[in-house]
Amino acid sequence: MITSPTLVLDRNKTLENINKMSSKISNLGLKFRPHFKTHQSLEIGNWFREFPIDGITVSSLKMAKYFASGGWKSITVAFPFNILDIKEINALASKIDLRVLVVDSESAIELDKRLTSNVSVYIEIDPEYGRSGIHFNDTEQIDKLISTLNNTKKLTLHGFYSHAGHSYKCRSANDLEQFSKAIINSLSQLKNKYDLSICFGDTPSCSVLKNFGAIDELSPGNFVFYDWIQTQIGSCDPDEITIAMKCPVVAKYPSRNELLIHGGAVHFSKDYDLLDSGEPYFGQVVQNLNGQWGKPIENCFLKSVSQEHGIIKCTDEFFNDTKPGDIITILPIHSCLTADLMGSYLTTDNERISHLSEKRI
Amino acid sequence: MITSPTLVLDRNKTLENINKMSSKISNLGLKFRPHFKTHQSLEIGNWFREFPIDGITVSSLKMAKYFASGGWKSITVAFPFNILDIKEINALASKIDLRVLVVDSESAIELDKRLTSNVSVYIEIDPEYGRSGIHFNDTEQIDKLISTLNNTKKLTLHGFYSHAGHSYKCRSANDLEQFSKAIINSLSQLKNKYDLSICFGDTPSCSVLKNFGAIDELSPGNFVFYDWIQTQIGSCDPDEITIAMKCPVVAKYPSRNELLIHGGAVHFSKDYDLLDSGEPYFGQVVQNLNGQWGKPIENCFLKSVSQEHGIIKCTDEFFNDTKPGDIITILPIHSCLTADLMGSYLTTDNERISHLSEKRI
Repeated sequence: MITSPTLVLDRNKTLENINKMSSKISNLGLKFRPHFKTHQSLEIGNWFREFPIDGITVSSLKMAKYFASGGWKSITVAFPFNILDIKEINALASKIDLRVLVVDSESAIELDKRLTSNVSVYIEIDPEYGRSGIHFNDTEQIDKLISTLNNTKKLTLHGFYSHAGHSYKCRSANDLEQFSKAIINSLSQLKNKYDLSICFGDTPSCSVLKNFGAIDELSPGNFVFYDWIQTQIGSCDPDEITIAMKCPVVAKYPSRNELLIHGGAVHFSKDYDLLDSGEPYFGQVVQNLNGQWGKPIENCFLKSVSQEHGIIKCTDEFFNDTKPGDIITILPIHSCLTADLMGSYLTTDNERISHLSEKRI
Repeated sequence: MITSPTLVLDRNKTLENINKMSSKISNLGLKFRPHFKTHQSLEIGNWFREFPIDGITVSSLKMAKYFASGGWKSITVAFPFNILDIKEINALASKIDLRVLVVDSESAIELDKRLTSNVSVYIEIDPEYGRSGIHFNDTEQIDKLISTLNNTKKLTLHGFYSHAGHSYKCRSANDLEQFSKAIINSLSQLKNKYDLSICFGDTPSCSVLKNFGAIDELSPGNFVFYDWIQTQIGSCDPDEITIAMKCPVVAKYPSRNELLIHGGAVHFSKDYDLLDSGEPYFGQVVQNLNGQWGKPIENCFLKSVSQEHGIIKCTDEFFNDTKPGDIITILPIHSCLTADLMGSYLTTDNERISHLSEKRI
């Protein structure tokens, strides 16, 4: 019985999401190297083993170690390597096909000097997201880095890696298609110029696009669960979301049609979407079915979160039907952060599944 | 040696913050019932034992159990009780002086029915924060609840509890004084009317006010560490902040004077403050001293966070002085959430201190 904030996972729907993405990528003749930063779970990782995948992607060395301990043999850490991690990079590279990102020549030379095993590298390309990587038009920097890499002993250049995180600003499948096409064109030009493979992969683009130009490999992550923001971006339908938070109602405030739940920033995270009014909200209420959940309920949402408190703004009908001691179900805005905070999953068939961030108490 | 995102704690400064707040409250002749939700640490909790305190405050039953396991005998769970927790409430109430909040008569009657031990309750009063509690002008509801409580068998009415979380909207000590005075006047009127003790306690008001009217007991929490937002509210000076994040720099982007660090939303949280431009930022860079830190560096801040990535926007000087492999130090916007995410502390004298949210791996 659920008595406190609990992250529930629908295993069958998750398998369906994996199957759909894997089939799509296979049918396009591309390689699939899924990002595991969303689920961060050895058990959920194992669900990918029945599909044709070419290794996995993670976003920290800690995750790489965790999944290597679960038997994964080819892992990309999709982050410019941290030279302070050299001891652990060497330890891991002696056991698996470890791949890291490089973004400048000086760091690549330093890494090469201190490596004791071979490491594959991707040159990270910034598709005007502005977070990390060499801008895709900066061929001077790209040329310089390729020439450096050709002179290193332990680094093997595998290709380019590019993440278009700014696709999250799109608000429809059409938007997304326009947005991604332009980026894929630019990346395809790089491929033509340098004859190097390209790995690409944000969930919105991978969910919506039907043509990936000259791209070789896709590494989306969030699609495994999706979340409410993905429905707003245009990547998925609400019923493709496979995790939800179940939270107890502890008080009712009739003067403002609001419910107080136990479920706050330490459970959901403070990631938000915006209402039409411009106000933020932190989750979408759905029909609560015993252990599972149904459709989104219009005008019922998580209006605010503090550390442990959450306030649900809702309709008269929902308000009148709900009382302290009830459990309500809420789709998270951003499943990666919610899963990381919750540290474990309860499946709809009542099995506990662990997450890298599982807590001691 | 620090190689990955690490939360560093200055023990002496923290003891000073505790000492200052404790002395202030003693000198005012009030009771001190500190909130432990900010540090969530048995070890740090023990640092309070040398000061005259009247029990502690927490914000979940899980925290109450944790601190009870550390020998605390009087604990307020500053949250309307969750009837689904009845088994654990009974277990805890049989061992310690457990206090919970009540906000309506129906729930109070239900709790009374199902309790096997006595529990003290506070009526939660909403000082127009709009989160939880009975509005302080709603004497009809207050009268009704008091009369209900007088007829219960296991519930003892201890007094009123009120948290003015909207003090966080203030932006100077003067603002804060005006804001808090009005609330304290209203609470003092309640005290006169009902002759019941009042517990009050947000860090901004407790830090700045010199007069607490008819209030009996204070339960601030954040003051133990403070954080960057508290300097903006007017509660503290930057050098009173006692925790900071140390993060490795992994890449430099000269075209935009930005540094990429390992340190993102899973380390800092997504809580933010706003720049004068209206753009959010997620942390304030300070001088990095070996294992410790110095003064804030103007125009150097954590501009954005994604799951593991952080982007530092900085001055030419800071940019030129910093290279991949360096560690930089950043004051968190909201220490409660950062500590909860990090799950442990490294003291400036190199001792590891655990947090309730400590992770298995």
